[in-house]
Amino acid sequence: MNIPEIEAIENAELGQQLDAAINNKTKPLGSLGALEFLVRQIGLIQRNTLPVLKNPTIMVFAADHGVVAENISAYPQSVTWQMVENFLAGGAAINVFAHQNNCAIQVIDAGVNHSFAPRDMLLDRKVGFGTRNFAVEAAMTVDQCHTALKRGMDLVDGMDGNVIGFGEMGIGNTTAAAALMHKLSGIPVEECVGAGTGLTSEGILHKQRVIEKAVKHHRDVTTPLDILATFGGFEIAMMVGAMLRAAQLRKILLIDGFIVTSAAMVAIRLQPALRDYCVFSHCSDENGHWRMLRFLEARPLLQLGLRLGEGTGCALAMPILHAAVNFLAQMATFQSASVSEKLED
Amino acid sequence: MNIPEIEAIENAELGQQLDAAINNKTKPLGSLGALEFLVRQIGLIQRNTLPVLKNPTIMVFAADHGVVAENISAYPQSVTWQMVENFLAGGAAINVFAHQNNCAIQVIDAGVNHSFAPRDMLLDRKVGFGTRNFAVEAAMTVDQCHTALKRGMDLVDGMDGNVIGFGEMGIGNTTAAAALMHKLSGIPVEECVGAGTGLTSEGILHKQRVIEKAVKHHRDVTTPLDILATFGGFEIAMMVGAMLRAAQLRKILLIDGFIVTSAAMVAIRLQPALRDYCVFSHCSDENGHWRMLRFLEARPLLQLGLRLGEGTGCALAMPILHAAVNFLAQMATFQSASVSEKLED
Repeated sequence: MNIPEIEAIENAELGQQLDAAINNKTKPLGSLGALEFLVRQIGLIQRNTLPVLKNPTIMVFAADHGVVAENISAYPQSVTWQMVENFLAGGAAINVFAHQNNCAIQVIDAGVNHSFAPRDMLLDRKVGFGTRNFAVEAAMTVDQCHTALKRGMDLVDGMDGNVIGFGEMGIGNTTAAAALMHKLSGIPVEECVGAGTGLTSEGILHKQRVIEKAVKHHRDVTTPLDILATFGGFEIAMMVGAMLRAAQLRKILLIDGFIVTSAAMVAIRLQPALRDYCVFSHCSDENGHWRMLRFLEARPLLQLGLRLGEGTGCALAMPILHAAVNFLAQMATFQSASVSEKLED
Repeated sequence: MNIPEIEAIENAELGQQLDAAINNKTKPLGSLGALEFLVRQIGLIQRNTLPVLKNPTIMVFAADHGVVAENISAYPQSVTWQMVENFLAGGAAINVFAHQNNCAIQVIDAGVNHSFAPRDMLLDRKVGFGTRNFAVEAAMTVDQCHTALKRGMDLVDGMDGNVIGFGEMGIGNTTAAAALMHKLSGIPVEECVGAGTGLTSEGILHKQRVIEKAVKHHRDVTTPLDILATFGGFEIAMMVGAMLRAAQLRKILLIDGFIVTSAAMVAIRLQPALRDYCVFSHCSDENGHWRMLRFLEARPLLQLGLRLGEGTGCALAMPILHAAVNFLAQMATFQSASVSEKLED
């Protein structure tokens, strides 16, 4: 498997130029807070003191998970394909928020346990009809994992936008993501599991036991790709591939919630320079997410208590990205507006 | 002074109807977090299970403060009128963010120490050329305070939108807001003061001492209107009036940062029912703001480390308000999309 090379974004000269441009706008120094960090990051990613956002697209990757056989979800597996149909019909939260904030949507069947009729909005990249149950055996074969990664990379090759929001749908995938999180961070399983779509505390405890047992069963799995193949899902692996190619092409990676961040953890482990291409859209209410973000030293843009997935956090954060780019492009400078600068301290 | 009557928004029957509509959307229960609370609140304000946002307008109130004579700001007083000119020329942060998010802007001269040439975008409601220095004497006369309140009410009477974002500009006004906060909440002055536009820690300590001395000097001032007249500014008093009328007319009050929240504290003290018409757009980086919000039991939508004022937090939060209203209006229900509901616990 050829993992794409990714360049570090840091560039001292460009960073200073961006800082100077930011600081010369008609506002107290630093007073736009997170927007200032954000536009600096976007400028470095794009190697430009006047970055622009072009055709933001949210890619929603869907797949099923064999581990649902262990009763780890509050919803039946059929909800995965039903929600894909809902995306295609325009009735899901991601449709509403993406439309509102002018993001395109692509829905990708990475491995849903259902045969969809062909549709314009649906990209068929199905690797299988769901993964196997990782409580019993590896979720995918190494070949399947490579196929998913490759298809993710190829998807990005066909895109002209420079912002990709990552979203997902897959009943059972918080269980896969919690297992990945534990294996990649060493954080105890207990602190990685959460309610997902709405487990009771009894259900959460059961989910924890399932993961702990599976981790023990697969204790010899240690490389990032083997961890991904063993515990991941087709949608997660395809996102990892898409993230790697997107960062190689110096696009902005807009990261959604718990599952998408678990994919980012895999990608960052494979290529640490990918970290700085990530914009973390929000901190989800799923229990492990804030710990993931802390592990990645990430500062999320939004904290709205969302736990829906689908890329909804990405869509809701897009206006913040626009605001960051717009203030740098459009605000007057102290000189151009004849506004007095700060008094001497 | 006639303070407008304000109705409580709570309505058990309508609240249940809103909850049912929210819970029937194709998403796990509660998974849209703050957006769910927000649309419920907006529905109750509008007495409607399908609330709409109509012509959101950000009113930016500008005025000068006599207390600048005590050297409590990092910027010279002339920046107030210079920034008003910047608003009128479209070069300030609020222009960029309001334009991006489709908010109208009104700029109101509530009492700037400058004579502006008449301009379409500028509403002349000047009560005076800045307040007096509250370290020495009351900032305004009772008559001036009433005039400012009345002009604020009248401004709202002329508006057709149902969302008003409140913003402000006024060198020295974090000092006035900190004094109001202390007098209305009892929180020690030390915990109310912050860096404003960028004081050093020495400057912050000086500001604290100025306020402490003034509070002692005016120790007999106890009613909310007297507190407002003694320590407030013309822009703050005019916002109080506008907030009272807007809540009376059942509009959404979109609250910005530290200074706007201090005006809301006065309005809430005058009419406690006004609290539930407030949507708190963000938690600012100005030191006292999170304490103000805690005092009001407010959960801000954004936490971006902003400390700019002008209504920038309101403009940046508008897409969140739209998202709340849009998900309720546009998402499919479990029935309409034929999506399976949650399994029995």
